Amino acid sequence: MTIDPTDPLSFTAIGHVEVAVADDRIASSRREIVSDIVVAERYVPGLLGLEEYSHLIVLFWMDRPRPATELISHPRGDTSLPLTGVFASRGRNHPNPIGLAVVDLLAIVGPRLTVRRLDAYHGTPVIDIKPYDLYDSYTDIRVPAWLRARAG
Amino acid sequence: MTIDPTDPLSFTAIGHVEVAVADDRIASSRREIVSDIVVAERYVPGLLGLEEYSHLIVLFWMDRPRPATELISHPRGDTSLPLTGVFASRGRNHPNPIGLAVVDLLAIVGPRLTVRRLDAYHGTPVIDIKPYDLYDSYTDIRVPAWLRARAG
Repeated sequence: MTIDPTDPLSFTAIGHVEVAVADDRIASSRREIVSDIVVAERYVPGLLGLEEYSHLIVLFWMDRPRPATELISHPRGDTSLPLTGVFASRGRNHPNPIGLAVVDLLAIVGPRLTVRRLDAYHGTPVIDIKPYDLYDSYTDIRVPAWLRARAG
Repeated sequence: MTIDPTDPLSFTAIGHVEVAVADDRIASSRREIVSDIVVAERYVPGLLGLEEYSHLIVLFWMDRPRPATELISHPRGDTSLPLTGVFASRGRNHPNPIGLAVVDLLAIVGPRLTVRRLDAYHGTPVIDIKPYDLYDSYTDIRVPAWLRARAG
């Protein structure tokens, strides 16, 4: 099956993010942020068993206005870093504005999932939640030297 | 900002999958499958620097006809396994049919990325490629006991 790449693919939100941190503090405080994901009522039965996982993958729709997509740029606007394509970056300027975060699952109460390390703004629509599984865990990975140096 | 959860969110394909394995063999041979992702020509500059990563996260649109979304079911149809919500499963029946795979990057030549462990069918539209980064790598994870027992 082939689809015309100009045809839009259509998704709907399954919930949204609630977080008491201002947008301009999200990126810098990512590691400590605790957020709630509130799942739409009709999807709540789909959470059954999720509490058995320690980590989740959250996909969200980056709905804030974004700069135009530049296919090549310096990471974080830092000209000391090498020019990098969008697909080699986790920045906000991908052609499809889908955010992805691996988060710690802290609690589930009704429709509300409390998680740590979700770098999504308050009100962000969530489009999918998946369990982080054994086959997502790679340890012997290679990343650019400049990135490793700054990971601290 | 709040969006009406019934408003569709719209995406476009940035490329597609080419793989010489039949649909009904993809799941069972996942670990060994070698596939190509062919990126649409206008997005090829966005691949710059991706070769410095060993692993990628690939998001794709599961465009084959799917069973209706059941929010709760037995994993793999196996009634010896506990009833599980869709969000606690990596199956194909999520409300938004977005596939996610962490893959080994083997080579990049022009628009063509050769990868291992992509469990997507031939012709599948790809909607995003992200580098697998240090903060995606968790080792001390908890998953359901039945899943760990079967991971082999």
